[in-house]
This record gives sequence, structure tokens and C-alpha cells, in this order.
Amino acid sequence: MVALPHPEPLSGESYSAVELGLGDDEVILLDQRYLPAEERYHRLGTVAQVAEAIRSMVVRGAPAIGITAAYGMVLAAAAADSPAALEHSARQLRETRPTAVNLAWAVDRLLALAASTPRSELRAAFAAEARAIHREDVAACRKLGALGAEYVPDGATILTHCNAGALATGGYGTALGVIRAARDAGKRVRVLADETRPYLQGARLTAWELHKSGVAVEVICDGSSGYWFARGEITLSVVGADRIAANGDVANKIGTYTVACLSLLHARPFYVAAPWSTVDLACPSGAHIPIEFRDAREITDVPFADLAAREPVLQEQAEPGPVASNRVPAKPAGRQRWVPDGVGVLNPAFDVTPAAYVTRLFTERGVFMPTDLLHAMASGSGGAPHGACS
Amino acid sequence: MVALPHPEPLSGESYSAVELGLGDDEVILLDQRYLPAEERYHRLGTVAQVAEAIRSMVVRGAPAIGITAAYGMVLAAAAADSPAALEHSARQLRETRPTAVNLAWAVDRLLALAASTPRSELRAAFAAEARAIHREDVAACRKLGALGAEYVPDGATILTHCNAGALATGGYGTALGVIRAARDAGKRVRVLADETRPYLQGARLTAWELHKSGVAVEVICDGSSGYWFARGEITLSVVGADRIAANGDVANKIGTYTVACLSLLHARPFYVAAPWSTVDLACPSGAHIPIEFRDAREITDVPFADLAAREPVLQEQAEPGPVASNRVPAKPAGRQRWVPDGVGVLNPAFDVTPAAYVTRLFTERGVFMPTDLLHAMASGSGGAPHGACS
Repeated sequence: MVALPHPEPLSGESYSAVELGLGDDEVILLDQRYLPAEERYHRLGTVAQVAEAIRSMVVRGAPAIGITAAYGMVLAAAAADSPAALEHSARQLRETRPTAVNLAWAVDRLLALAASTPRSELRAAFAAEARAIHREDVAACRKLGALGAEYVPDGATILTHCNAGALATGGYGTALGVIRAARDAGKRVRVLADETRPYLQGARLTAWELHKSGVAVEVICDGSSGYWFARGEITLSVVGADRIAANGDVANKIGTYTVACLSLLHARPFYVAAPWSTVDLACPSGAHIPIEFRDAREITDVPFADLAAREPVLQEQAEPGPVASNRVPAKPAGRQRWVPDGVGVLNPAFDVTPAAYVTRLFTERGVFMPTDLLHAMASGSGGAPHGACS
Repeated sequence: MVALPHPEPLSGESYSAVELGLGDDEVILLDQRYLPAEERYHRLGTVAQVAEAIRSMVVRGAPAIGITAAYGMVLAAAAADSPAALEHSARQLRETRPTAVNLAWAVDRLLALAASTPRSELRAAFAAEARAIHREDVAACRKLGALGAEYVPDGATILTHCNAGALATGGYGTALGVIRAARDAGKRVRVLADETRPYLQGARLTAWELHKSGVAVEVICDGSSGYWFARGEITLSVVGADRIAANGDVANKIGTYTVACLSLLHARPFYVAAPWSTVDLACPSGAHIPIEFRDAREITDVPFADLAAREPVLQEQAEPGPVASNRVPAKPAGRQRWVPDGVGVLNPAFDVTPAAYVTRLFTERGVFMPTDLLHAMASGSGGAPHGACS
């Protein structure tokens, strides 16, 4: 257990998914792959390391990887000796993961500053802007959490999928922000957390942070949520989002669509909580959102069994000095692979829930019917379109 | 890898979930917890060991545990010195798992013989009857497989959940029997196998036996089946059953109901394949089927990481002699637990799918609308009611 190596975390918690070091020269990441067993922080000094950390899911969650990429651009600003080099770093970061739109949005927001900023002031300007993105995200979570909490009745049992909490954002969380705000408003709430295969964000991360916050939480297998719906035990579901298209379709962690289908069939509300940075008005519908397919080993192998062996770059950075080799966990002696050799695996990391399945969308700009996003834009309550839709 | 220690397996395969030794003095079980990594057989000589093997899921699948319990009663017949002792063994076996009805059905079928059989002939009579149960089950699977295969179009992509294959039955399988029969009839089929948390029967067992049979199979996470339904890739679903109530409600592995809901919402057929021994006409509806809740560690911990440490009774039996201790796998050095300490877990092992969600029920007595089971009985095509419904 390593304490967060930052004296003033913007997350507002005793832990942070991501922070920028006070000297603007390192990105501090909580390695979420080791949770809940270990709270381990990496201090990364290069864009390549930050990109690898996003790709390998040291940090995950659409808002959190957006902030991480923004902080990565601060390192890029310090290292780049030309606009081309800065563009190269931006591309490195953008290409780490395709589905979440916040990533490209954050990178582009910093790049837009570069043209009007003298080279000597670039790092400071990027650092200020990146921290602004972080602060805005936490503020957005608190605002949308308060708005969403109005939809949570006292005594509710709430199903959530994956982790849309403090660990997935700058702090406080989106779906878990709604739950925190409901609890802070004095409502009794109980959470059922889908374990969320293959990466177990629900079992490992949602359970960890809700338990830390004193919210009652129980972990269930993804396939069993139907059982709890059928028993009438689920009052509502709330999840986060990785990208929301202009027509209100929502991309989120694989398995979300199944929760939406069960909600519809059992006549229970299905809510999506997300900052406006997740809305991609340049993307007409969910059919245009790129869905990332990840490594088969996430499904075939014991998760996290050989983390250190797979991440030498990060390990060296995180654990300098002669003790590093002692910290590399040995390969488990038991079974490593569950799926027989020669059998294929399909591992889409996200799915798309049609707007019509979403009861309400909670954002810091208000509560919407997802199908009304474009109307909201037209009437001036939305922001500018953004995002690179494939 | 140990070869099946039986020269004439009734399974009709090179492997068997369960066989009775030729001397009627040992129950031979394939330890399915080690699959697909290792094909390991136990030779069990006592009812207590057989009961423990059922409880700890060395063998699983409603028809297979029915046959196992029947063979366990053969050991009981040899050991029992009184009707009370025989009753005690029957109770031991019946109480191992509550949901599958075949278990109680098989035990009761043997017990019914005891009254009319001289003590000296009891073991031989039980062995003959237990083998008859085994043979009937394989024949039932082949028959219902052929009937069900008529409902599989050429080129179908078939979703299945858990394992309802040769490993779950006397041989050939129920849901996988349908798939095998379709393939053997010359149809091109492709299977998507839900990995089936928490016990991974889909990833480990269905993938193993279909791959061995040359059927194209790909493993997916349970939560992702919605994604494949939404893409229109799933032609039909077929699953097994642990108990079918008189009104046609179907208890099966947790997660089955979610597949049925997705099938309904996407207008795809949802088939159940089961031998008649799974039908419990004494049980009026799914609400009366007892649902087993299993140990939280199935969800919180790395599956199968400490198998040998947990099963000393079976290990000693299976691996006599001085090498036994060498075979006990060491505890994995890596992470053992995914869910944070102090967080609750809910682990129902089965769910109930209402009859109205089931398109057709394939049995060896014919293909039914599940809601017509009682009518089928009344018109003489069904068998006698059985089972102990709570």
C-alpha cells in the first residue's frame, strides 16, 4: 500500500485515479489493476508511458482517461521541440483507446491552445488547462450527481455495471456520484454491483470505493442481474458512458446493453450519468461509434495473474532501484488459462444502448431525455459539437 | 492427463462424466474442475465421497448428478446393514444439491427396488438399475437431440449457456446433443458459448467438448450476449435444465433467464433441451423450485486456485501412494481475491425462466410448448409425476 504521492489531489479523496505532479513533470496514476489488493501509484515522466498506461488499463473510465491524456499533453509540451512533435504525442495518446470520446476531446482542447501560446509558456499553459479540465470534471460529477439523486427514491436498490466512480473520473464519479449524492441527501441506498467481466471493474473497483465511502454494496455475477430483476429487487439502474451520440445512443462497458434490456423488460428505469464531455454531437448515432475489441487473454486467462511481467515499462518507472525485481509477482503455480487452446474468444469491450432504452441522461447541464439531445443543443442549453466519429 | 479408467464407458465417448466400475465397487468421476487443463479421474469407494464430489462440483449437470447419485446408491447397497442405513445414504446424496430434480428422482428410483429385493442381491440389483438409468439418459439425449436438431437451420449461430453437454449427462448432452445432432445431420453450425460465471462451465467445459467434437465454438462473456443479439448474429439459443415445473417454468444455471429475456426482446427462439427425468410434475411452478445459493468464494476468489487444498478427501482417494503430496498444486503467488474484504456477495446458482419465455422444450418424449406439459400428461404422452418440490 503506497499513499497517494500528491499533497493536494484535485480528486477530493484520499486517493486519485490521476493527478499532475506539482512540478508539472509527472503524471501520477493509481494502478487500478492491482485494486483492491494494493493501492499502487505510478509516477510517469513520458508521453509513451502515459499512453501505455491508458492502453493497458492502469487507468480506465472515459473521464479519467481524458484527464490522463490532458496531463500527458503537459509532458508532451515540455518535451516537444516542434509543432510536429506535439502532434505526434497527441496522436500517440488519441490512438490508445478508440471508444471513449473524452480522450480525443481533452487532447484537442490542449492542442487548440498551442497555436496561440509562446513555446516557453506552453508547459505552464497546458498544465493550467489540464488542471482546469480535471476541476471541471469533478465539478460536473458533483452537479450531475445532485441532479440525478432526485431520481433515486429513499430505500432504493440500485444496480450498476462496471465502475463509473471516483476511479473512472477526476473524482466523485458519475453513476456512483449519483449514488453518493443520494446517500448524502439522507436517502437509504443499497447497491448491487455487476462484477463486470472480463476486467472485473465492478467487483474490484466499484465495490472498493463504495465500501470505502460507507455505501452498502454487494457484488453479483453479470448473468445474475436478471434473477434480481425478476424478484423485483432492483429499483433502478444507473451507469456511466464512454460516448453518447447525437441521437442519444450510449456506448458504455460491454454488458451495459444487457442491463438496459432487462430494465426495459421489467419496467424499471435505466439511467445514464455522464459529463457533457462524453457527448459527441459530431457522431450521429451509436452505429458510428467505434467499438474496441481487446485481447482474448482478458477472457481466457486468470485476470491480473502476470501483471508485472507484462508491464516492464511501467514497472521500471514505478519501482526504481534494486528492489524492483523482488516486487515482480511470481507466475501463479495453478491454472493460468480457462479456455481450451484452439478455441476462439470474442472480446468487445463496449456495447451501444439505443437512446430509446435510456430513461434519463444526467449531465452537469441538466437532465435530458437522450432523444432530446439535439433539441437541447438547438435551444442553447448544449455545448459545441466535438469528437472524431468513425 | 489420466485416461478414463473404464474399458466400456456407457457415455459412448473417450471420456465420461461418470461411470460405475466393472466390479460395482467404485464410482469413477471425471473431475470437471480441472478441465480443460487436465483430464483427471477419481475412483470413489464410499457414499460420503460421492456426496462430497457432487457437493463440490467434481461432477455437475442435472442428469450427470442423477446418474452419479444412482451409482452412489450401489456403494450404499454394498455397505448398508439395514434399511435405515440405506435411507441414511439416500438422504446424504439427496441433500448435496437442492435444485436439480434428477438427483432425488434417481435415488428414489433405486430405493423403490430395495423393499422387493433380498439383501444379498441388493448391490447387483442396484447396479443393474443404475446402469439402466445411465443408458436411458444417453438414449434420451440422442433422441431429444435428433428432435431438437429439426429446429436448427443450416448456417445457424447458436448461443448456449453453461454446459449441457456430454459432461453434464450420461453422454452426448442435451443442449449440446441438439447441436451435435444438427451437425451430424449435415448442418453448418457455429456456437457462441457464454463463459458462465462464476464457475466458467461454458469457457471450460462447453468449449472443451465442442472443440473435441469438431464443432466451431467461440467463448464470450455473459454480459456480452446482448451485443451479439443486437447485431443480429444469434439465430437461436438452446440450454439445458435442472428442473422443469409442471407449468413449464425452467430452472437452469444462473444467467439462463437473462438469455431468455434477450431472446424475447430480439425475437429469437429460446429452446430448452432436457430429458424427461428433469420434469417435476409434482412441482406446480418455478416459484416452488428451491434455488441453491453457493459459497461467496466462487465469486470473490480466483476460481480453482486452491482446489487440492480444499478437497483432501477426494485427493487422497484419487491419488494414493507417496506421490500424492507432489500433486497438490501450490497456492498461486498472485492475487487470490478480487472483491474487497467486507463487501458482500450474492451467489444464486440457478434462476427460473417462465414457461412463456421458452419457445419449445425438447425431450425424448417429444417436442412441447412448455405450457402444454400438463396437457401432454393428460393425453398420455407424459410419465408419472415425481420429485420433492419445496
